[in-house]
Amino acid sequence: MQNRRVILSARPAGVAQAEHLSIDTATVKPPQDREILVRNHALSVDPVMRWWLSDGGGVSTPIGIGEVVRSLAVGEIVASNCEGFKPGEMVLGWFGWQEYAAVGAESVIRKVQENGLAPSLSLGVLGINGITAYLALTQVARPKPGETVLVTAAAGAVGSAAGQIARNLGCRTIGIAGSDAKVAACLDHYGYDAAVSYRSENLTQALQRHSGAGIDIFFDNVAGPVSDLVMNLLAERARIIVSGTIGVSDWSSKPEGPRHDRVLLSKRARWEGFVVFDHMDKYDLAVAQLAQWIRDGSLRYREDVLDGIEKAPDALAGLYRGENEGKRIVKLI
Amino acid sequence: MQNRRVILSARPAGVAQAEHLSIDTATVKPPQDREILVRNHALSVDPVMRWWLSDGGGVSTPIGIGEVVRSLAVGEIVASNCEGFKPGEMVLGWFGWQEYAAVGAESVIRKVQENGLAPSLSLGVLGINGITAYLALTQVARPKPGETVLVTAAAGAVGSAAGQIARNLGCRTIGIAGSDAKVAACLDHYGYDAAVSYRSENLTQALQRHSGAGIDIFFDNVAGPVSDLVMNLLAERARIIVSGTIGVSDWSSKPEGPRHDRVLLSKRARWEGFVVFDHMDKYDLAVAQLAQWIRDGSLRYREDVLDGIEKAPDALAGLYRGENEGKRIVKLI
Repeated sequence: MQNRRVILSARPAGVAQAEHLSIDTATVKPPQDREILVRNHALSVDPVMRWWLSDGGGVSTPIGIGEVVRSLAVGEIVASNCEGFKPGEMVLGWFGWQEYAAVGAESVIRKVQENGLAPSLSLGVLGINGITAYLALTQVARPKPGETVLVTAAAGAVGSAAGQIARNLGCRTIGIAGSDAKVAACLDHYGYDAAVSYRSENLTQALQRHSGAGIDIFFDNVAGPVSDLVMNLLAERARIIVSGTIGVSDWSSKPEGPRHDRVLLSKRARWEGFVVFDHMDKYDLAVAQLAQWIRDGSLRYREDVLDGIEKAPDALAGLYRGENEGKRIVKLI
Repeated sequence: MQNRRVILSARPAGVAQAEHLSIDTATVKPPQDREILVRNHALSVDPVMRWWLSDGGGVSTPIGIGEVVRSLAVGEIVASNCEGFKPGEMVLGWFGWQEYAAVGAESVIRKVQENGLAPSLSLGVLGINGITAYLALTQVARPKPGETVLVTAAAGAVGSAAGQIARNLGCRTIGIAGSDAKVAACLDHYGYDAAVSYRSENLTQALQRHSGAGIDIFFDNVAGPVSDLVMNLLAERARIIVSGTIGVSDWSSKPEGPRHDRVLLSKRARWEGFVVFDHMDKYDLAVAQLAQWIRDGSLRYREDVLDGIEKAPDALAGLYRGENEGKRIVKLI
C-alpha cells in the first residue's frame, strides 16, 4: 500500500512556495505497538504553517528538510494497536500532509463525534479556527452585550467565526476584509452589522463612522497598516487580540509602524497574543458550543476545498495570496 | 491674605516650559458652604501634567488658559465649612499649584494620617507614584515569586517603588536608568538585583545577560527605543505595563518603531496601559501596605525638593530634562 506524502525539500526565507515542497511516495508501514494507522480524509492549510516551514517564528520547532509537512488532518482509523481507538473512528490530530499516518495516541487531539456534521469541519469552524475565535473571545476578551467588536480578515476562517460568535454573544460587529466579494460575504452570509474593504479609498472615515463610541474589542488576524488605523479608534478599556499577523508578510526585517504605547495608556487598553494550542483543555467545551450554533443556524462557515494531494504544495502560498474564501482544506477522500 | 498661584498663560505644543506659566497673586477667598480652605504644604510635579497642560493627550481635559495649574498637593485645613473635615487635618487632593485652595469634599482624595511619616510622602511613595507601582503590579501584572521583573526609569518615583515592591513580592529585579548615578542608586539604595544605564554601549548584551530565561514582567515608564529592546527579551506569558511614556518626547507626529504584534503573539504576552486614577477605591489598601514597608525599611524613596512656588513654572520641564532623582515636589512650607 502506497503513501503519498508532501515533503519539505528546500527551506523558504518567507512563506513556503510550491517549489519548496515536493511529493514523494513511500510504503505504508503497519502501526507499531500503541500506534494507530489513520487514513487522512482532509488536510488542514493554516497561516501558522509558514512559521513551521521556515524558522519557527518563535512559536514552534521548524519542520526539518526531508520531513513530512506537519499539519492537522482529519481521518479514519484503519488499523489500531492502541487501546481506546478502534478502526472506523474518525479522529482529528497531527497526521501531516500525507495519505496515511501511523501515530501514537499523543498525536490525536480528539475523536470527531459531532453527528450529522462533516468531519472536515474539525479542521475549520469546529477546529482550531472556530476554537481560536471562541476561546480568544470568551477567555481573553470577555465581551459584554452591547460592546462593539471589530474583526480583521473578517471573512476568513477565524474572522468569520469571531464575528458571528461576538454577535451571538450580543455584540455589534464590524468586519474588515480584502475584496468586495468578501465584504459582501461578511454582510450577507456572516451577518456583520457593518463591513468595509481595506482597499476602499476612505477606510479611515468608514471605520470612524461605523465604530461609533469606539472599538471595545479588536480581534486582529492581520497586523500592519490596517490594524494601525483601528488602534486609533479604541474605546476605553479596549481589548485587542493578536490572533494572526498575515497582513505583514516579512517579519524578519523588523517592520516598523506607529508606536501604540500612548493609546494603550490613554485608553487603558490591553493587547494580548492568543495561541489556541495553549488551551487544548478547553477544546471540547468550545466544540460543544460551536456545534450547537452550527446546528441552530447561528454559525455559518465556508470551506475552500482543493481536491487531491497534488494541490497541497501551492496551497499555503495561495492562502498568503488571499485567494481562498473561508477555511482552506485539501480533500483526499 | 494673599494667594500666589501658578497660571497657564500660553498653550505649549509639547512639554510646558517656564515661559508657558506665570505666577500671579489673588486674594484668598474664605471657604463657601461645604468647602474647606487648604493651605498647601507641598505641590506635586508629575510627568502626566504635560498632557493636562497641552491637549489632554486622550487622558483628561486640558487646563484652560488663565487657569491655575491642576495638580495634586498636600496641605493643612485652615478653615472648614464642610462636615467631616476639621482645621488642623492634613489632606491630599486636587488643590493645584497655589498657596491656598478653597475646595469641596470631592477634591479631597484622602486624609493624611500615616503617623511618623512626612505628609509630602503622600505625593510620592505614598501617593500616586507608589500606588501606581503597587496596584499595577498586584492588580494587573500579578507577579509570582521567582519571576524576573524589568523596570525602566528604575530610579524614578514610580520605577524605584516598582522595583522594590517586586523584590518584596519575591521577584528578581532589573533596572534600566539614564545615568551612572541613577544606576548606582538602583543597586545601592533601591536594591535591584541588576541595573544598567540605557546610555551604555552594550545595552542589548547587558540586558540579555541579566534577563536570563526572559522578562516575565516589564514595568515600562518610558516607551521608545529602550523599551523596544526589552520587548525582544520577553518570556512566555510576559505582562507589560505601560505606566508612562516619558522616553518619547513628541507623540503628536505619530512616532514609529518596531512592530511588536509578532512577539505578543509568539510569546502570548499581554501589553496593558495603567492609569492609577481608575483605581481610587484601592488607594487605602495600597497606602497601608506601602506605609508598612516604609516603616520596616523595605521600601526606600528619594524626594527631589524644589523650595518655593517660584520654582514651580520650570519644575515640569526639568522633569523631562531628567534632572530630578526621585519624586519631584515643590515645597511651600
